[in-house]
Amino acid sequence: MAVSDPVLVPGDVPDKARETYIANYRLVTRDSGRLMLFAGDQKFEHLNDDFYGEGIHDDDADPEHLFRIADQARIGVFATQLGLIARYGMDYPNVPYLVKLNSKTHLVKTAQQDPLSGALWSVKQVVKFRECTGLRIAAVGYTVYLGSTFEAQMLREAAQAIVEAHRAGLLVVLWIYPRGAAVKDEKDPHLIAGAAGVAAALGADFVKVNAPKREGTDSAVLLRETTRAAGRTRVVCAGGSSTDEKKFLAGLYDQIHTGGAAGNATGRNIHQKSLSAAVAMCNAIYAITVEEKSVEEAAALLDAPAA
Amino acid sequence: MAVSDPVLVPGDVPDKARETYIANYRLVTRDSGRLMLFAGDQKFEHLNDDFYGEGIHDDDADPEHLFRIADQARIGVFATQLGLIARYGMDYPNVPYLVKLNSKTHLVKTAQQDPLSGALWSVKQVVKFRECTGLRIAAVGYTVYLGSTFEAQMLREAAQAIVEAHRAGLLVVLWIYPRGAAVKDEKDPHLIAGAAGVAAALGADFVKVNAPKREGTDSAVLLRETTRAAGRTRVVCAGGSSTDEKKFLAGLYDQIHTGGAAGNATGRNIHQKSLSAAVAMCNAIYAITVEEKSVEEAAALLDAPAA
Amino acid sequence: MAVSDPVLVPGDVPDKARETYIANYRLVTRDSGRLMLFAGDQKFEHLNDDFYGEGIHDDDADPEHLFRIADQARIGVFATQLGLIARYGMDYPNVPYLVKLNSKTHLVKTAQQDPLSGALWSVKQVVKFRECTGLRIAAVGYTVYLGSTFEAQMLREAAQAIVEAHRAGLLVVLWIYPRGAAVKDEKDPHLIAGAAGVAAALGADFVKVNAPKREGTDSAVLLRETTRAAGRTRVVCAGGSSTDEKKFLAGLYDQIHTGGAAGNATGRNIHQKSLSAAVAMCNAIYAITVEEKSVEEAAALLDAPAA
Amino acid sequence: MAVSDPVLVPGDVPDKARETYIANYRLVTRDSGRLMLFAGDQKFEHLNDDFYGEGIHDDDADPEHLFRIADQARIGVFATQLGLIARYGMDYPNVPYLVKLNSKTHLVKTAQQDPLSGALWSVKQVVKFRECTGLRIAAVGYTVYLGSTFEAQMLREAAQAIVEAHRAGLLVVLWIYPRGAAVKDEKDPHLIAGAAGVAAALGADFVKVNAPKREGTDSAVLLRETTRAAGRTRVVCAGGSSTDEKKFLAGLYDQIHTGGAAGNATGRNIHQKSLSAAVAMCNAIYAITVEEKSVEEAAALLDAPAA
Amino acid sequence: MAVSDPVLVPGDVPDKARETYIANYRLVTRDSGRLMLFAGDQKFEHLNDDFYGEGIHDDDADPEHLFRIADQARIGVFATQLGLIARYGMDYPNVPYLVKLNSKTHLVKTAQQDPLSGALWSVKQVVKFRECTGLRIAAVGYTVYLGSTFEAQMLREAAQAIVEAHRAGLLVVLWIYPRGAAVKDEKDPHLIAGAAGVAAALGADFVKVNAPKREGTDSAVLLRETTRAAGRTRVVCAGGSSTDEKKFLAGLYDQIHTGGAAGNATGRNIHQKSLSAAVAMCNAIYAITVEEKSVEEAAALLDAPAA
Repeated sequence: MAVSDPVLVPGDVPDKARETYIANYRLVTRDSGRLMLFAGDQKFEHLNDDFYGEGIHDDDADPEHLFRIADQARIGVFATQLGLIARYGMDYPNVPYLVKLNSKTHLVKTAQQDPLSGALWSVKQVVKFRECTGLRIAAVGYTVYLGSTFEAQMLREAAQAIVEAHRAGLLVVLWIYPRGAAVKDEKDPHLIAGAAGVAAALGADFVKVNAPKREGTDSAVLLRETTRAAGRTRVVCAGGSSTDEKKFLAGLYDQIHTGGAAGNATGRNIHQKSLSAAVAMCNAIYAITVEEKSVEEAAALLDAPAA
Repeated sequence: MAVSDPVLVPGDVPDKARETYIANYRLVTRDSGRLMLFAGDQKFEHLNDDFYGEGIHDDDADPEHLFRIADQARIGVFATQLGLIARYGMDYPNVPYLVKLNSKTHLVKTAQQDPLSGALWSVKQVVKFRECTGLRIAAVGYTVYLGSTFEAQMLREAAQAIVEAHRAGLLVVLWIYPRGAAVKDEKDPHLIAGAAGVAAALGADFVKVNAPKREGTDSAVLLRETTRAAGRTRVVCAGGSSTDEKKFLAGLYDQIHTGGAAGNATGRNIHQKSLSAAVAMCNAIYAITVEEKSVEEAAALLDAPAA
Repeated sequence: MAVSDPVLVPGDVPDKARETYIANYRLVTRDSGRLMLFAGDQKFEHLNDDFYGEGIHDDDADPEHLFRIADQARIGVFATQLGLIARYGMDYPNVPYLVKLNSKTHLVKTAQQDPLSGALWSVKQVVKFRECTGLRIAAVGYTVYLGSTFEAQMLREAAQAIVEAHRAGLLVVLWIYPRGAAVKDEKDPHLIAGAAGVAAALGADFVKVNAPKREGTDSAVLLRETTRAAGRTRVVCAGGSSTDEKKFLAGLYDQIHTGGAAGNATGRNIHQKSLSAAVAMCNAIYAITVEEKSVEEAAALLDAPAA
Repeated sequence: MAVSDPVLVPGDVPDKARETYIANYRLVTRDSGRLMLFAGDQKFEHLNDDFYGEGIHDDDADPEHLFRIADQARIGVFATQLGLIARYGMDYPNVPYLVKLNSKTHLVKTAQQDPLSGALWSVKQVVKFRECTGLRIAAVGYTVYLGSTFEAQMLREAAQAIVEAHRAGLLVVLWIYPRGAAVKDEKDPHLIAGAAGVAAALGADFVKVNAPKREGTDSAVLLRETTRAAGRTRVVCAGGSSTDEKKFLAGLYDQIHTGGAAGNATGRNIHQKSLSAAVAMCNAIYAITVEEKSVEEAAALLDAPAA
Repeated sequence: MAVSDPVLVPGDVPDKARETYIANYRLVTRDSGRLMLFAGDQKFEHLNDDFYGEGIHDDDADPEHLFRIADQARIGVFATQLGLIARYGMDYPNVPYLVKLNSKTHLVKTAQQDPLSGALWSVKQVVKFRECTGLRIAAVGYTVYLGSTFEAQMLREAAQAIVEAHRAGLLVVLWIYPRGAAVKDEKDPHLIAGAAGVAAALGADFVKVNAPKREGTDSAVLLRETTRAAGRTRVVCAGGSSTDEKKFLAGLYDQIHTGGAAGNATGRNIHQKSLSAAVAMCNAIYAITVEEKSVEEAAALLDAPAA
């Protein structure tokens, strides 16, 4: 979808929800067709590992840090669990929210049992929550661990979430990660392309995949198979190395301009910084994703005071 | 059912859905009683293996390729997942669709765990989708892995899908594949006949089985036990060798005229080609299945420009 | 229940369904209090083994054979799956039907996993089907594998089927077979009596058990413990050796007159024959079960032309 | 609760069901606050072992024997499965009934798998049955195997049964037996007291436990911990040795007067006798439980002709 | 939340339940923003171990002891199962109650199977119970064993309980304990902080965690990571050593004033004493938690006669 294209509304969005869907699509892509997703849903998956400890700014120890960033920075949508939105949303009413429907902890490793992340909330409950709060709930998200012996449950819950969400005009982002005893190489480009195809067959609006990796080939080039396999479902990715911000932005740029990605989903690389640095990082990512800026232009924002 | 026979409506189709059922039957069989099913549901089961790689035309990397073929070629019905139809159907409104209700990936092998493919969508949701889009949704499909330790769940979901679909005038195609630790020879003719009998007992309109194989006997002859065991449920099959198109067509011809099959379900042998070649292949298969053409007449279409 | 007794209506049959229950009871017992059940539900459990192969008449390869027998012979009720009735019932409207609610294949052996046969259809769906078709659906059936690690699911589904069926005036036949890793001797007379007692506690109208066996004792004598344990639930059984028809009939006679059985459930011994021989066999069985004939009188029917 | 105390109605009994609850409580305790429960629910758990064989009177081979006893003897309530009540209740309308909601067979031993006894019927169905038959259905029962790996399912079903039953004015008796690989000593007094506490926390009206045993201590004394732990939930127990009737009665007396039990649940020690002896045994047990008689007075009834 | 702060109502509380939520919050925190939770829900988890035996006062053998304490002492809320409240609540109508929704026994150890504590009652049933009894049901509670292979079920039930409870204006306390084969150190400070973060993401009002422990660091200092990670969800903890009351109170004081806890959940340290001593202990804990008293002031209450 080019920046100026009209929104393509999928067929399972009924007439009465059509305007809502289009408005939500425009809201989270800022009319660019590209998505800058700020991921703040890791308090389940990574417990406190991402929020406290060596190399993490002290601001990040408090969950409100995530809301402050989402509020002050330029983002497309802020993804987190319903419980946090219920507790902080009233103080951050301008943020566009994505409610993450399922989550698990990382305590049970694949060596012990294949991953299962079950739905915590139904889309119906999210819709009621939207009505109850008046917040800008624009989307829902769900993670599928493909290749897990529990994949049947997760695929069904994902399929159901999409049908229900579209009925209410909500967008859906699927996170699809191949994982389980059956999966030898989670970053295999061909496997990730397959995961994107599954998202398309399920009817997701966006699919977040890990950047593919193969020794000796550029990851952004490898990503092309994935973005083609996804068809009209748009692919979002994370950027490159997290240790060097400019490298990260360059990776992100390449994923979009070489790999065909339609945006990114970024968490730790943003929120582990101080509020001002996190906001600057968000804005830099946003500049590349939504504002068609170059890596250099974006990187320049990192040193500027947060807007 | 001979070409001119009236449609036999099963007893679980209520009066109010009778006309719809008959219309759907005529639509997908093109009034021939035979079904040419174009299978485009493998983005789950085979991930991207069927769509990208050595020997596969580059056109196939994009899921829209499937819709272009279905739109331009002569087919009975195009089978795929609801999510893809939701995303592309509005641009291909003339295609008759079959919504595949369940799907799994091939990542978990039988050596690790018996196969389970759970329902992703209910027939009620398909019916709502039909109303919402106005698309020509004529049928639903479901795959049962017979002999899996999970067969009870799949048999129940299949039985339920049939009752629900018939209530709405939709046809049902079951894919039944014996598979699991208990199954030593998936192509055993007697076992495949048994699978067809299960489809009949469940009340399917069509059953897709793999072509039976036994050293030293013609597969089409072996198929006769299956087509008899299926009774009034019609059997569809895939053709012969995929490496030689004419052989494939000859195999298909024999399945119908020797084995008693009522059509075919073909995927890779069609969509892995360029659009024009895929359309030609479809038309050749259609010629044999629906138009009572000879293998030679059909094969001649392969070299002709697509209609 | 003697032949002239009024029908004893169980307490979970509500007033509005009372007449239906009595009519169904009279229909399937032909007012004799005894049941001749023609079992045509083995296309799941035995796949095509019972219908095609050495020693099986070629007529049996087509499922319609079962309907032709049920139509032309004297029987009490014809038991089969809903899907087959939906496809053939309109051509055989005079047959009294029992819808078998659950079924499994024999592919997974007890050595691999304990048996689980889950409900495919609800009684509510059977009732709708009866209304939709106007067919003489008089009963439902359910198989319980007692002693399986899955017995809890099957016992619950059986209990629920009985309550639901009685509410609609339908009779219920339970097939109860002790089976699973915990069961050493499936034909143990005391165990089979226990199975019959479970059927009584569940509230079944009839229970089909295997004939008990113990070295050195007559099976019909052994059956007495079972028919007493079943109380007012009536026991049906299969006859003796299947290789000798007269022996089979004699076994059946003894089960009734010595063992206290109230009929039989017979499948293979009927349908593996040609249509005319199958009809004759049915009539012979019926003569003993319902018409109070001697073994000799019944056996004489085997050589007579089918009525 | 002393004999003359008013009935304490638990808070989850709504106003509209209050009179029914009180009437049921008075009915089954015969206004004594003590319960003589005649257990006739073992046709599942023990199959035919309790009803037929060496040392068991021939009368017991027929399930109607249980109803005859319940009808002719003095009892508080007769506990059995819904199916049997449906089949015999119309001939025994004066008996107060308890419907046992769950049951399992003893075929799968703990060494193979932990015990699971799942609900067969819902309380709603029992209430409908009460309305449909007009029978004196006063209570429901449920067995929990505490310490089984399936305890979560059974605890939930028990909790739900209590809430539903109280809503309809029905009493609830829980049978709680610690059992499973985790349970080393099922008769441990402290463990049994814990089981009684669980029944109290679930809100049961009565809890049936096994008599505690510890080498060198009187079982009735050991029972005190249990009856105190149960609080306002009343404890019922079985009597002592089954081989000596007077010893059995003495054990029962001690359980009440020393141990604080509020009655008993007795099955085999009653129904394995001839009808007249069973009735006499019932009456003797009733004399101790409900009529405040001494062991000698009760034992005298055993030799008297049944009333 | 400082003592004088207004109540922060989460967004999933609808307008019509807002006043109820605020009233419940004020009730259980006694307008202090801090919670003194008296835990009386251990008759499941610890069976009779906490209530009878060496070192436990004889008063504790009867469950009514818990209600007497809750009635006579100063507490915020008394947590126990619905069954006990149903049986005793009418005599203790002034106590604020928390209904514990799930519970399990400790019989199955982690070495045998990971812990699963399933919901026994729904929030809807608690709400009906509140209406039916008029009791001061202010909150519900649920325990999650994080890291158990069953965590998906418990996380979903917890999430659902919160949404349902807030809809009815009820508060929610989650108990979150990392436990299972995957959990090596249940008291690890970082892990406990993660657990508190999960409670926040689920939307709990309060989360009860175990006090973190690490060799050589003060537990109250370690708790800071947890109370920050919990954000607006308030953390409650148990005090220090149970063998020395003053030490216990000092530990509790430090958890609040050093660790940032918002109260405590205390069970055994209260109810294993005589009624008067238990009431005194409650009042001492209450003095620190709610009344901003020093350890010395609180400890002085232990020797005073119960108010």
